[in-house]
Amino acid sequence: MDFEYSPKVKELQQKLTTFMQEHVLPAEAVAAQQLAADPSHWGAPPIMAELKATAKKSGLWNLFLPAREGAGLSNLEYAPLAELTGWSPLIGPEAVNCNPPDTGNMELLHLYGTEQQKAEWLTPLLDGDFRSCFSMTEPEVASSDANNVCLDIAEDGDEWVLTGRKWWSTAALREACKVAMVMGVTDSDAPVGSRHSIVLVPMDTPGLQIVRSTTVLGFDDRHEGGHGEIVFDSVRVPKENLLGPRGRGFAVAQARLGPGRIHHCMRLIGMAERAIALLTERARTRVAFGSPLADLGVVQANLADSRIKLDAARLLVLRAAWRMDVEGNKAARHDIAAAKVLVPLTVKDIIDNAIQVFGGAGLSQDTILPVLYAQARFLQIADGPDEVHRRSLARAEFAATPVLNEPK
Amino acid sequence: MDFEYSPKVKELQQKLTTFMQEHVLPAEAVAAQQLAADPSHWGAPPIMAELKATAKKSGLWNLFLPAREGAGLSNLEYAPLAELTGWSPLIGPEAVNCNPPDTGNMELLHLYGTEQQKAEWLTPLLDGDFRSCFSMTEPEVASSDANNVCLDIAEDGDEWVLTGRKWWSTAALREACKVAMVMGVTDSDAPVGSRHSIVLVPMDTPGLQIVRSTTVLGFDDRHEGGHGEIVFDSVRVPKENLLGPRGRGFAVAQARLGPGRIHHCMRLIGMAERAIALLTERARTRVAFGSPLADLGVVQANLADSRIKLDAARLLVLRAAWRMDVEGNKAARHDIAAAKVLVPLTVKDIIDNAIQVFGGAGLSQDTILPVLYAQARFLQIADGPDEVHRRSLARAEFAATPVLNEPK
Amino acid sequence: MDFEYSPKVKELQQKLTTFMQEHVLPAEAVAAQQLAADPSHWGAPPIMAELKATAKKSGLWNLFLPAREGAGLSNLEYAPLAELTGWSPLIGPEAVNCNPPDTGNMELLHLYGTEQQKAEWLTPLLDGDFRSCFSMTEPEVASSDANNVCLDIAEDGDEWVLTGRKWWSTAALREACKVAMVMGVTDSDAPVGSRHSIVLVPMDTPGLQIVRSTTVLGFDDRHEGGHGEIVFDSVRVPKENLLGPRGRGFAVAQARLGPGRIHHCMRLIGMAERAIALLTERARTRVAFGSPLADLGVVQANLADSRIKLDAARLLVLRAAWRMDVEGNKAARHDIAAAKVLVPLTVKDIIDNAIQVFGGAGLSQDTILPVLYAQARFLQIADGPDEVHRRSLARAEFAATPVLNEPK
Amino acid sequence: MDFEYSPKVKELQQKLTTFMQEHVLPAEAVAAQQLAADPSHWGAPPIMAELKATAKKSGLWNLFLPAREGAGLSNLEYAPLAELTGWSPLIGPEAVNCNPPDTGNMELLHLYGTEQQKAEWLTPLLDGDFRSCFSMTEPEVASSDANNVCLDIAEDGDEWVLTGRKWWSTAALREACKVAMVMGVTDSDAPVGSRHSIVLVPMDTPGLQIVRSTTVLGFDDRHEGGHGEIVFDSVRVPKENLLGPRGRGFAVAQARLGPGRIHHCMRLIGMAERAIALLTERARTRVAFGSPLADLGVVQANLADSRIKLDAARLLVLRAAWRMDVEGNKAARHDIAAAKVLVPLTVKDIIDNAIQVFGGAGLSQDTILPVLYAQARFLQIADGPDEVHRRSLARAEFAATPVLNEPK
Repeated sequence: MDFEYSPKVKELQQKLTTFMQEHVLPAEAVAAQQLAADPSHWGAPPIMAELKATAKKSGLWNLFLPAREGAGLSNLEYAPLAELTGWSPLIGPEAVNCNPPDTGNMELLHLYGTEQQKAEWLTPLLDGDFRSCFSMTEPEVASSDANNVCLDIAEDGDEWVLTGRKWWSTAALREACKVAMVMGVTDSDAPVGSRHSIVLVPMDTPGLQIVRSTTVLGFDDRHEGGHGEIVFDSVRVPKENLLGPRGRGFAVAQARLGPGRIHHCMRLIGMAERAIALLTERARTRVAFGSPLADLGVVQANLADSRIKLDAARLLVLRAAWRMDVEGNKAARHDIAAAKVLVPLTVKDIIDNAIQVFGGAGLSQDTILPVLYAQARFLQIADGPDEVHRRSLARAEFAATPVLNEPK
Repeated sequence: MDFEYSPKVKELQQKLTTFMQEHVLPAEAVAAQQLAADPSHWGAPPIMAELKATAKKSGLWNLFLPAREGAGLSNLEYAPLAELTGWSPLIGPEAVNCNPPDTGNMELLHLYGTEQQKAEWLTPLLDGDFRSCFSMTEPEVASSDANNVCLDIAEDGDEWVLTGRKWWSTAALREACKVAMVMGVTDSDAPVGSRHSIVLVPMDTPGLQIVRSTTVLGFDDRHEGGHGEIVFDSVRVPKENLLGPRGRGFAVAQARLGPGRIHHCMRLIGMAERAIALLTERARTRVAFGSPLADLGVVQANLADSRIKLDAARLLVLRAAWRMDVEGNKAARHDIAAAKVLVPLTVKDIIDNAIQVFGGAGLSQDTILPVLYAQARFLQIADGPDEVHRRSLARAEFAATPVLNEPK
Repeated sequence: MDFEYSPKVKELQQKLTTFMQEHVLPAEAVAAQQLAADPSHWGAPPIMAELKATAKKSGLWNLFLPAREGAGLSNLEYAPLAELTGWSPLIGPEAVNCNPPDTGNMELLHLYGTEQQKAEWLTPLLDGDFRSCFSMTEPEVASSDANNVCLDIAEDGDEWVLTGRKWWSTAALREACKVAMVMGVTDSDAPVGSRHSIVLVPMDTPGLQIVRSTTVLGFDDRHEGGHGEIVFDSVRVPKENLLGPRGRGFAVAQARLGPGRIHHCMRLIGMAERAIALLTERARTRVAFGSPLADLGVVQANLADSRIKLDAARLLVLRAAWRMDVEGNKAARHDIAAAKVLVPLTVKDIIDNAIQVFGGAGLSQDTILPVLYAQARFLQIADGPDEVHRRSLARAEFAATPVLNEPK
Repeated sequence: MDFEYSPKVKELQQKLTTFMQEHVLPAEAVAAQQLAADPSHWGAPPIMAELKATAKKSGLWNLFLPAREGAGLSNLEYAPLAELTGWSPLIGPEAVNCNPPDTGNMELLHLYGTEQQKAEWLTPLLDGDFRSCFSMTEPEVASSDANNVCLDIAEDGDEWVLTGRKWWSTAALREACKVAMVMGVTDSDAPVGSRHSIVLVPMDTPGLQIVRSTTVLGFDDRHEGGHGEIVFDSVRVPKENLLGPRGRGFAVAQARLGPGRIHHCMRLIGMAERAIALLTERARTRVAFGSPLADLGVVQANLADSRIKLDAARLLVLRAAWRMDVEGNKAARHDIAAAKVLVPLTVKDIIDNAIQVFGGAGLSQDTILPVLYAQARFLQIADGPDEVHRRSLARAEFAATPVLNEPK
């Protein structure tokens, strides 16, 4: 494993640090005001357009995409950059066009899209002109078991006809969201694993109705266009809207889920760094019982544990990124799963501790801590709950050969 | 310790159970709709008036007040009733006029109020006609150390003149909130412990301005009138508005904080019970990987731990209540502190586990779990952060004489 | 629930406290020297005989037995006394003839023994003249699932013939150990639950061979006669040695396991109390970085948590004891299971923390902490591992009716 | 960071794996029997000489020493090799002459020894002919604060005269232990940090008396020569026995403590790997309630967590080793501290979980798990308790500059 960064990455790191410090962090308050001023608006606050323009001009754009249409960075190279955007999760990633679910959707279009699909959807997404959503989870079934997904995609002549209900389609409520990638059953009689396919559905297709947005721990996530619950009532799209091979929906989705999970982890590391930075600043200046909080043994012990665990978690993320680069996403799947379990849990605890040091302010809108907390908690469920990843890891472990064997 | 309930309490338990089942739980959705329909409104949704009328008629009213003006119940007797109201924390306690901060404020008025103060403030509070708030915490100082509280209460002829800033004054934004109990410094030259006093300040007094409400993990707590940040700019009240002896503000406040803390714990137990009830229902019916979640070992193990820890936590609450009844609040202060540390933490973990079993639904508005979670997390900070209570407990432990001594 | 103690119990508490302080604790060092002086000796050190004589004379004898042959105490009354003996687990319980496995064995003989069995075995056990062991667990199978127990008990004329292997038969290596209660299969064709029986086997029966003693975390537990692994090679005993009904072995064993588990918990509470007493004494006097350890925030926080969790755990034990008294062992089985899971884990953590405060001394023979630690850790496995108890508790929880139901 | 291994290291890994599998693991039972056969013997069992001869012949010798007198490996290169020896902590490290405290002592002699000291002590240690001990900790003071160390080293003509008491001098009771490195006060009037020096004291110097060995959780650690408590009663050694500069004892000791700590961590990783290997083998074959333990969700979840946390902990160790190599031990001190806190705790939990899966066997001499457990628990105290390392880490964190600053 080699975690050294090339000069190119170091330069990007520096540029992105400056961008975050000078443009993104100061824009947080503005964005919050803009969103508060228009409660009916779902999606990016007006200041986002300025941030995106600045980022694009600085070459901080599509950093996530390993291909030449993006920044051409490896996963390992992207890690420290994604981490930086994670310091400001509500606006940082989008400002550099590296925000989910668009990143994963672009990846899919890049890998599986036809020329026409690419022209129609990928290009404007890469330009940051569109937004997109990904519709997999369904309210009626335990979607942690993907085989439960049951939206029906029937063939009818030249068309697919979609009938069913999805939710947690992040970004769906945005005006700019133009297309949904929808997972459903095209071949119900095929063997398990070959029943599902993904089709592209323009958001303005008749029969597609967004019925509401779900909240996360009290947050409506309006900045990103919420999490749409969508009814598909005989929604018709042409056959050529199939994305990737028919019956290979899970395999196709996997191509976005692996990188998606590790990108989430990278950003979460940045969120934890911000929580620690907030905590240390507060504890140095806040006085109780005659001395700064920084002098209290419990504050120190918890801070040390935060640092230790965060550094360990980051290394696990880098290992996964490195293996994805060197051995491929499939070979790295257990490394990804390990990071996906450890990082959200670790980061959640770090943020929770920072909240406690802040007291009431830590729970309120006066710090970004509650927002960060919700992000971390969400990731223990989103993209596969911890329990599913632990199950896979255990199976791999039971199947592995130990380095040494007990003597008989 | 005797935790048996009298027939009177059992009858109240039964009546309250029926009331919660038939009136309060079904009113939750209505209340949410009413609040959503009028985003400018802070405070009880219209349905609350009906609930209160029903409760009053049923004799389910002021259960918290040990005195004859209330239900005359001991703390131990009140415990199972407060627990029941905790199942629906946003409307249950208020429906039976047992919601903080009014409960504590009524207790103070009952114990320390002059006849005039009682007539003016206590009577309408007991009737549920008014609401009140308690202003102690200040944004500029670490209020976990109460000596830091520095709002100035200056004497000027027949008046007190208040200058300073408070926050976390729960209920302040409600129209029905008529009076604030404000802690401040009346005697800055007195020895530590004798500097602070409490004065009653009508909310419409000139110079008192509510500048905003603070949020809790994304929730605005509009149902209870938010958490007001209040500026006191030379606010003048007559001298007779002093509540309790001058310079005894901490001692007076303690009379509300002890019961207040244990009441919070009682309700939290009920919240955890609801989380468990939600979890078991979900796990019995939700299927993943071929069997109900209830058949998964991890779900079972976590559920068992939830039950074990919740039962232990409840017993700690009952012990504190019992000792308050038998030996007084002061003698029970360590029992109260123990419950105050254990219960929010335990209940938070139980709810967090229930969220995980629910998946996305558990984080969203589709269950009450995020609301419950915020309540539990809030209580690790409100009414004294865990760290302060642990410190007191450790000191008591170091000062205690062990049952047996090591032989020399 | 009523946890008040009668004057009789308070008097016993006082007498036992004095006995522990004046006789048992000072005897610990003597006992250790006596055991060290004779490495071939398994069982009570010579000083035990003196302790027993003193205890008997003081009326501190057979406190565990609810029947009139014992002290006639209820489980709840026994709790604070067992806790006191737990302060010195290696010699305290035996000094008052309240040590497992004899206690459970006496209980079985009392409940199920024939007159002849009682005369031959129960009387000398009650007098403290004999010791006995209980042979259930087997090395070849996962005995956490009792149905796996497979020692064969064949009928041959007037005799039972035992063939198989047992281990963890505590006390077996003692000279004074005269009889084993052996669980095995008498009716392999019967339905599950009716296959096993218990027979009494004198230790000197031909074919019974103790092959070794198993250790616990490095301790050989020589003071109590170790934990015997026993081979039964066509061991013959008369038919009248059957204890309790044929095929009802599990039901019979349950009569000892329920009380046995809760007695273990009671003693563990005492062990944790001693760990806390040791910690506080050490931390008050030991100086690092310029102040006593007692002034360090981390020491304080951990101590507070120890006290909080221990008090909660004790209440759970008392609840189980109370329910056993009032509703019977079967009705109390979930309360027992809850205590059996929570107490060893809690006590283990408390002791581990005390070890850490002591540093090297805490790991060594200079304190009793490692002995206490091993006791607590052992109890997470002995008498049913945590996992089995959690499983039962979860099932009970899934089968229970919640107090309130979600509105439809 | 580059964690790739060179071909040379890979070859050593392979050779060492073979050596561990074919020679060391099978020797464990032999060694245990040999030690059991002669309870008066402290130190290596006879089979150790054979193992050492084989290792030396295979070029598996002094792998720990970066200098050319050793294997010339960097810390990062040594990591996977030390990990392998950790699989068998009682005999593995010594078999390849990589066992503490000799490793650290050799390092000191290599760095600070005079030519004469090297000839007399270092050469035979490198050859594995001698053993040595390190005497720093004292029973009367909290040695976690090294300034408390108070053994007196007085000047008297050409000699140092040592008076005081040490303990936890590992290996002291071995016959082959020829020399102690003793930390004491040479300059009590000097400023803090310049008072202590280290002198070399041959074990047979008059006045040096080993009074006993301390145990660790019930283990006497006889295989390595125990942990000696040593009285120094006017022990005289020539002035030239000073090791390193006078008054620089702490700085000198640091040169052994840094590498020593990280070597401990490397071996602990190997111990955890063995615990996991044992667990998986057991769980695949042991059946309870109708299926192998490996099929139980709780076993799976805990195993997954073990793997995740162990991999993260290992990466933290590698990072520290890498930084020691590249930036030096001082620059790496916080990385070392982080590993020193995380690894023992993580490994302890992993082993504890493996014990639980094994049930009674896991606590007994039938598995190596209790031995491993004691090693991990010991390391939470030895070489600086967790609390001290957390304190340093917190201070570093409070002194650090965050990557990004909150906007004003």
